[in-house]
Amino acid sequence: MRAGPSQEEVRRHNLGTLLRYVHVHGATSRAELTTRLGLNRSTIGALTADLTAAGLVSEKTQRDTGRAGRPSLVVRPESSKVYAYALNIEVDRLRAARVGLGGMILDRREAPRPRGMQVVDAVKPLAGFIHELNDVPDGSRCVGVGLAIAGMVRRADGMVRLAPTIGWKDEPVGEALVEEIGDVGPVTVGNIADVSALVEHSRGAAAGRDNVIYLYGDVGVGAGIIAGGRPITGHGGYGGEVGHMVVNPRGRPCSCGSRGCWETEIGEYPLLRLAGRGDRSGREAVLGVVEAAMRGDWVAQQAVRHVGEWLGLGVGNLVNIFNPEAVIFGGTLRDLYLVAAAQIRSKLTEVALPACREDIRLRTPELGRDAALIGAAELAFERLLADPLL
Amino acid sequence: MRAGPSQEEVRRHNLGTLLRYVHVHGATSRAELTTRLGLNRSTIGALTADLTAAGLVSEKTQRDTGRAGRPSLVVRPESSKVYAYALNIEVDRLRAARVGLGGMILDRREAPRPRGMQVVDAVKPLAGFIHELNDVPDGSRCVGVGLAIAGMVRRADGMVRLAPTIGWKDEPVGEALVEEIGDVGPVTVGNIADVSALVEHSRGAAAGRDNVIYLYGDVGVGAGIIAGGRPITGHGGYGGEVGHMVVNPRGRPCSCGSRGCWETEIGEYPLLRLAGRGDRSGREAVLGVVEAAMRGDWVAQQAVRHVGEWLGLGVGNLVNIFNPEAVIFGGTLRDLYLVAAAQIRSKLTEVALPACREDIRLRTPELGRDAALIGAAELAFERLLADPLL
Repeated sequence: MRAGPSQEEVRRHNLGTLLRYVHVHGATSRAELTTRLGLNRSTIGALTADLTAAGLVSEKTQRDTGRAGRPSLVVRPESSKVYAYALNIEVDRLRAARVGLGGMILDRREAPRPRGMQVVDAVKPLAGFIHELNDVPDGSRCVGVGLAIAGMVRRADGMVRLAPTIGWKDEPVGEALVEEIGDVGPVTVGNIADVSALVEHSRGAAAGRDNVIYLYGDVGVGAGIIAGGRPITGHGGYGGEVGHMVVNPRGRPCSCGSRGCWETEIGEYPLLRLAGRGDRSGREAVLGVVEAAMRGDWVAQQAVRHVGEWLGLGVGNLVNIFNPEAVIFGGTLRDLYLVAAAQIRSKLTEVALPACREDIRLRTPELGRDAALIGAAELAFERLLADPLL
Repeated sequence: MRAGPSQEEVRRHNLGTLLRYVHVHGATSRAELTTRLGLNRSTIGALTADLTAAGLVSEKTQRDTGRAGRPSLVVRPESSKVYAYALNIEVDRLRAARVGLGGMILDRREAPRPRGMQVVDAVKPLAGFIHELNDVPDGSRCVGVGLAIAGMVRRADGMVRLAPTIGWKDEPVGEALVEEIGDVGPVTVGNIADVSALVEHSRGAAAGRDNVIYLYGDVGVGAGIIAGGRPITGHGGYGGEVGHMVVNPRGRPCSCGSRGCWETEIGEYPLLRLAGRGDRSGREAVLGVVEAAMRGDWVAQQAVRHVGEWLGLGVGNLVNIFNPEAVIFGGTLRDLYLVAAAQIRSKLTEVALPACREDIRLRTPELGRDAALIGAAELAFERLLADPLL
């Protein structure tokens, strides 16, 4: 319970609000900023001048819009000069990008990640990517490194507490990365579903929606959840472990030690097993099943149907709990959704209460797999947006 | 995305913050308010003067505290003069209270509610309670009526969308109440678990905790959920329907039309059925089973154990999703928790990931069944606290 802010706090808040607006929405005219932020023209002018002096935005006269009157200045983020490094550790891939303010991917690298690879072995190629991406124009400014990982991350310090699908437990991957790459700014670590949810919420498939569930699937399943416009992180940062919601108590043992967790029914392994392809793994193998089902392969269709029903059941549970406006299917669940939408919808309708599901949209990610990279960069940009002149 | 507030907005915000502080924490010295709200002495003095003039707080000199120096003035809410009417429609009871600012129950009424009672029949006795409670001191001020109900309430207008355990669907109970009682201020309707959660969070078993799940059980099961310090309402206000999370797909049909919902395993009916008392109903019957189990009745013990395990399983699911600091067992789940804590904890430990459950406390409500009444009153106080001089 805090009292109201001081004038200086208000100014800093306004600077952050303006910068965040153009970061999310791209080039915006001063006239529109005046309307959107509810501030008068002179305040917008003063804030823009401060941000320009700090090298964070630039202004240009808008081209002729066909309207009479003085042309409005357009404020745009300095995407090519202010940037973050974004890293992803997925089950099967390591990915890296240099992402400009405004969420623009300027350059990227990617390599396969052998299952079972240890922390130290993942950190080296990621650091190598950063060195390769480091060929930047003069006057550029790096705000830091954001790393998104398919695992549970302690909010306080970025410790990876558990990443069963990656095979890690209690790994200080942020520290290891700092040691390897040296000083390119602070390293912030987050969960891949959480950061993807933030990005699809701010500029993707759920833009403008305040209650959103982003599901991310590979071997395991996690969720990034936005409720009332804000991310659900839980006390330590471990919220959203929907893959370990027990939906089938008489089902199969889970890697977590429990039984019948949602991911034992909708993860990569059950799909491949049911499709008679239990000897394969990875996203290509999942796509193989999905394509076989689309071609009319009966065994693949049965597998997809079975997994689709369990997917719909668990989504129904989450809809009853969160009454969301959008559910987004990411990772391998995207591929599955595209071929099993009918099963998913049917089971969801059976499980979810009418009032809880009445305004729901089922969607695939608009930013695709880039959401995880842009989202990782957001971890690094957040400090700048919270206080641009810091 | 809004810009910073004006000076007048800041003043109104500060008035609300100060009033909310003494509403929640009771009488507080000016010195402590200065510290807690981060405002200087003269600002606290000016705000207190405004609130005193509005008849919302009063000030007295603190009795001798044994310390040297000028005694600090103590600010207290005008509990006996500023009040709300609080109403509860539970499965088996109708309850009403006059609640003073500060959350003090000044007077109360209560009557049994026959199962199957229709809206119009519930509204009449509730209106009668309000007339009985209406014998107030001169100069008193009623801020409105808050009604908490064991059902799904549309946030926008208070329409009861579904209250299966009460037997209602799409009932404009708020409107019916206004028609019956005439003008005692605005009527606000909310869900009983949601308002109980708010009260246990602000001044009860979860005070100071930002991530809390309050479970409320009778025939059905609902949750009021606080995440990151804020209530989860969902898009339309229907979030928290955890009783309809499917946990046993091969289980029994649920009143909602689905199968194996959590409440088909932990509600009042399965407990009574398993205990061989399927012909009874209501809280007294549940208490009967709990007491029989404590006395060593084998059948009752088996029933309690079975239901306790399912309770633990579902709580485990919610812990994986929300990573909360506290789970509070309200309604009949309180009685069950007191006798089945061992089963609940054991199953919870099996289902919940270690990181998600490591800081968790299992609790019974500190305010007992009064939480639902005080919480209903909060619905009415909220308008005043948001802008005290409105």
